[in-house]
Amino acid sequence: MPFHYFEDFRPGEAVELGSRAVTEAEIIAFATEYDPQSFHTDPEAARRSSFGGLVASGWQSCGIFMRLLVDGLLKESSALASPGVDEIRWLKPVRPGDVLKGRLTVLEAKPSRSKPDRGLVRHACELSNQRGEVVMTMRTLALFSRRPA
Amino acid sequence: MPFHYFEDFRPGEAVELGSRAVTEAEIIAFATEYDPQSFHTDPEAARRSSFGGLVASGWQSCGIFMRLLVDGLLKESSALASPGVDEIRWLKPVRPGDVLKGRLTVLEAKPSRSKPDRGLVRHACELSNQRGEVVMTMRTLALFSRRPA
Repeated sequence: MPFHYFEDFRPGEAVELGSRAVTEAEIIAFATEYDPQSFHTDPEAARRSSFGGLVASGWQSCGIFMRLLVDGLLKESSALASPGVDEIRWLKPVRPGDVLKGRLTVLEAKPSRSKPDRGLVRHACELSNQRGEVVMTMRTLALFSRRPA
Repeated sequence: MPFHYFEDFRPGEAVELGSRAVTEAEIIAFATEYDPQSFHTDPEAARRSSFGGLVASGWQSCGIFMRLLVDGLLKESSALASPGVDEIRWLKPVRPGDVLKGRLTVLEAKPSRSKPDRGLVRHACELSNQRGEVVMTMRTLALFSRRPA
């Protein structure tokens, strides 16, 4: 387990997460529930929009990144919770058929002052498509347990 | 349409969005797809976690806020796209049975310099539960068309 405890996160280190293909059906299903704007739910209306075709909700890009992060790192880690996320930027549209991959770089790892059993890690996150274009960036915060003595 | 065009957003104005109940089945369905950590997917494991019971993925709280925002404002507006979101903070757990409501305050409305047909609006967003506790805050960015002359 290369990233199990707080102590395993060293600033500057990068982790390649897996990849995931995005289908039109998934884009429409997500948006129908959480972001029913017509350029996310209706291929015909999307064609007439400034996007020129169906695009995924930015929140779905966040969800896809999160899934890659859970499968690729958090699932086997001591992750406790996340206080939040900073500066999400949706840089390029995500379209049906895109294959997205995740990458994360450790920015900072800081022991908690109030709770000595844990520490806060800041990560810079990138989601890229099959052409190598970065479609989303964000900075996540997450609490991990410290390694038992 | 009180908030159709860019010009309709005046700093300091607040908008109450609707509310939505959250079920255990929805929490598990979302997390199974996008955030399969056991405190989001497995009631029994969640009981043994620091949360003491099943809690919604923070990304689902974002999705629920977005749905309230689309239904309560964006759907009838000239919203074009969003460049991103700043400073999401997940302040309290969201649990099955919670009823969440959204509120948004206009922070800033700035005409685009490069594209005279649109402007950027920044909103401060809050999601609260049935006890009036704020469970999430964030600041959104969104582009709206300017009112035709």
